[in-house]
Amino acid sequence: MARINEHYLKLAGAYLFPEIARRVEAFAALAPELAGRIIRCGVGDVTEPLPASVVAAMHRAVEEMGTREGFRGYGPPWGYDFLRDAIAEGDFRERGIAVDREEIIVSDGSKTDAGAILEIFATGDANRIGITDPVYPVYVDTNVMAGNTGPARPGGSYEGLVPLACTEENGFVPEPPDERLDLVYLCFPNNPTGGMIDRPRLEAWVEWALRHEAIILYDVAYADYVTDPELPRSILEIEDARRCAIEFHSFSKNGGFTGVRCGYTVCPRELRGRTAAGDAVPVLELWKRRWSTRSNSVAYVVQRAAEALYSEAGRRETRALVDGYLANARALREGCAAMGLRVHGGEHAPYVWVGCPDGLDSWGVFDRMLEDLQVVITPGAGFGRLGEGWFRISAFNSPANVAEVVRRMQDAGRLTAAPATG
Amino acid sequence: MARINEHYLKLAGAYLFPEIARRVEAFAALAPELAGRIIRCGVGDVTEPLPASVVAAMHRAVEEMGTREGFRGYGPPWGYDFLRDAIAEGDFRERGIAVDREEIIVSDGSKTDAGAILEIFATGDANRIGITDPVYPVYVDTNVMAGNTGPARPGGSYEGLVPLACTEENGFVPEPPDERLDLVYLCFPNNPTGGMIDRPRLEAWVEWALRHEAIILYDVAYADYVTDPELPRSILEIEDARRCAIEFHSFSKNGGFTGVRCGYTVCPRELRGRTAAGDAVPVLELWKRRWSTRSNSVAYVVQRAAEALYSEAGRRETRALVDGYLANARALREGCAAMGLRVHGGEHAPYVWVGCPDGLDSWGVFDRMLEDLQVVITPGAGFGRLGEGWFRISAFNSPANVAEVVRRMQDAGRLTAAPATG
Repeated sequence: MARINEHYLKLAGAYLFPEIARRVEAFAALAPELAGRIIRCGVGDVTEPLPASVVAAMHRAVEEMGTREGFRGYGPPWGYDFLRDAIAEGDFRERGIAVDREEIIVSDGSKTDAGAILEIFATGDANRIGITDPVYPVYVDTNVMAGNTGPARPGGSYEGLVPLACTEENGFVPEPPDERLDLVYLCFPNNPTGGMIDRPRLEAWVEWALRHEAIILYDVAYADYVTDPELPRSILEIEDARRCAIEFHSFSKNGGFTGVRCGYTVCPRELRGRTAAGDAVPVLELWKRRWSTRSNSVAYVVQRAAEALYSEAGRRETRALVDGYLANARALREGCAAMGLRVHGGEHAPYVWVGCPDGLDSWGVFDRMLEDLQVVITPGAGFGRLGEGWFRISAFNSPANVAEVVRRMQDAGRLTAAPATG
Repeated sequence: MARINEHYLKLAGAYLFPEIARRVEAFAALAPELAGRIIRCGVGDVTEPLPASVVAAMHRAVEEMGTREGFRGYGPPWGYDFLRDAIAEGDFRERGIAVDREEIIVSDGSKTDAGAILEIFATGDANRIGITDPVYPVYVDTNVMAGNTGPARPGGSYEGLVPLACTEENGFVPEPPDERLDLVYLCFPNNPTGGMIDRPRLEAWVEWALRHEAIILYDVAYADYVTDPELPRSILEIEDARRCAIEFHSFSKNGGFTGVRCGYTVCPRELRGRTAAGDAVPVLELWKRRWSTRSNSVAYVVQRAAEALYSEAGRRETRALVDGYLANARALREGCAAMGLRVHGGEHAPYVWVGCPDGLDSWGVFDRMLEDLQVVITPGAGFGRLGEGWFRISAFNSPANVAEVVRRMQDAGRLTAAPATG
């Protein structure tokens, strides 16, 4: 009799985005005359077409794969050198950060990486794990599935994970805690709050991690949205972060790769974990072994697509995509302000984080925005206990749709607990 | 201090194929004048270009992704319906097997699936796990990494995994054991032996699994190499297998997708696992949750490529590819026979399984074949204790290269323990 992984049974309810999809479908079925008006600012999914240089690179790679000379079978387990070199040069060395090819592992995206990284660490209560609240739910759910938590608590958190509060008071950037932690998830620019960390506060985290021999799992999926050169785009800009951090990169939100599937991690050679007996083990060696045994890397065509993002044209096109989404974010901030709401984020991130008006919780706002405005947002409660009282509005949409959303917001006037229609 | 997953430290040496690559590189460095002569029949990697219908489908999909109307971001977590429907129809319903879309999960390949499936089962000694010997090493290594084994034993096996012997005597098809097992890996047509199971023996396995409430992890990556219609291409052809099997499919070896990365699993709705308390849990629900939380599925372009394999042209082209590799396998059988070796497999599989001559072990044959003939094979010892005394020769090559390998074998004459050169 095969025994299942019972940790899965602790998972509280459906994953956030399927639940949103369910409510949108239900609304469209109840009010079919309004279904065509629905504009989705919920899931953080890009909407603009792939850059021309990416399209051209993919066509070339497909062509190669159709010829005997150009055909490529299994690729190197950690990604092709052409891509790892382009990454090392374009994202690090050009910015004065020493990262080399061997420290870069190409993957099919940050969601995969966020779950996979837990495979190389001990499970159960071997590590004390810190996770921001609110947070990208995948960090939490993958820990539950790996057996690193106790049961769910009311509100969606889990026993055994240490919450790091991100509040309006601390500008949505947590301070390092007084206690020991072994693994800490940080993400800046932040999903969902759109908040951004400055260099002194990131230095404080690195110093804290070195003192506690903790490892920071640092997610920079939104690095290209940082528009202020004084703000850190990579934790590896901080001295000594190589001894305490693994960095997670994605091409989803800059190159528009949500449907292309490519990202990468940087695991510095110096980074060490420990056995129960206290022996130091290079984390990179475990991480490489994870990938060579569990995967055959990413499609050749996809790796050529990612490489094209580092070409001169690719960078220009990426910049234009990101600038477009940032302009959307600015417009959405204004729209939300017009509804009398407290607004954060959206300056160095494609997400605007908005306070719920008195008398409405975040699923309440979700339902009101859907029913009254036909605009889909993401309720903050889906991101953790401290996400309650907030909602996330995504700038990933066409400028025309964003203008329409803002117009609807302005027409609707102040969002209050009393329904605007019906 | 972050604690690592110490199960990784049990892994015995490098993964097989990196070790082969290392020896080939070392030989090429020592004998650069012979390096150009090397023909690789080691790794089971296809060599022929992608089918024209696949190339055309990928071009179309790339084109779509470059337009606002055609662009696709995040896809459904378990694969697009167009592909799941094509699979359900083409691989099952047309053959009279009832499988529907919802039971099919698209992935980036069988290697990923083989590791990922363990995530939904309990680890440690909660399940008794049977693995054939010899075997595709990924089944073993992923169990080690998941913590399902004790330490390595001499010869490369691990305490805690129950070996199912595949020998010349049983035609490389193990009988169901007398003891209880909870999870059993079977692969037919087999990698590495090229052996094939017949229907009565597969029925015996299904009957055994139902009696013991075991789950069979059934790998049919090579199903299209079955040329005898009396032999089972899918375990789901057997009555009641829906209550005891998960099937693993790959497009690597029929469509030539080793560099495209796509495969799928079929997890029947009726399949149940148990909690420690004995409650039955539908395995499909856990498996779907695994994929929706840990991945964002496979590139749209890749899913369109896989769909094209089910078109009329795609089927014709796939058949031609497989027939070509099967013709290679026949030629290699003859070449090995010319060297006075015992030959198995290669009839319903792209692998020929060859006995080592007296006085040479399988790494010895590897070195002799490399040094004397400049032909790379895979030593049987890399596949398990009972693989020693055998080697695998892969038919994945161009017809011209295979003809050249056969010519070299015939020229070399009998392979004996005494070196032919030097």
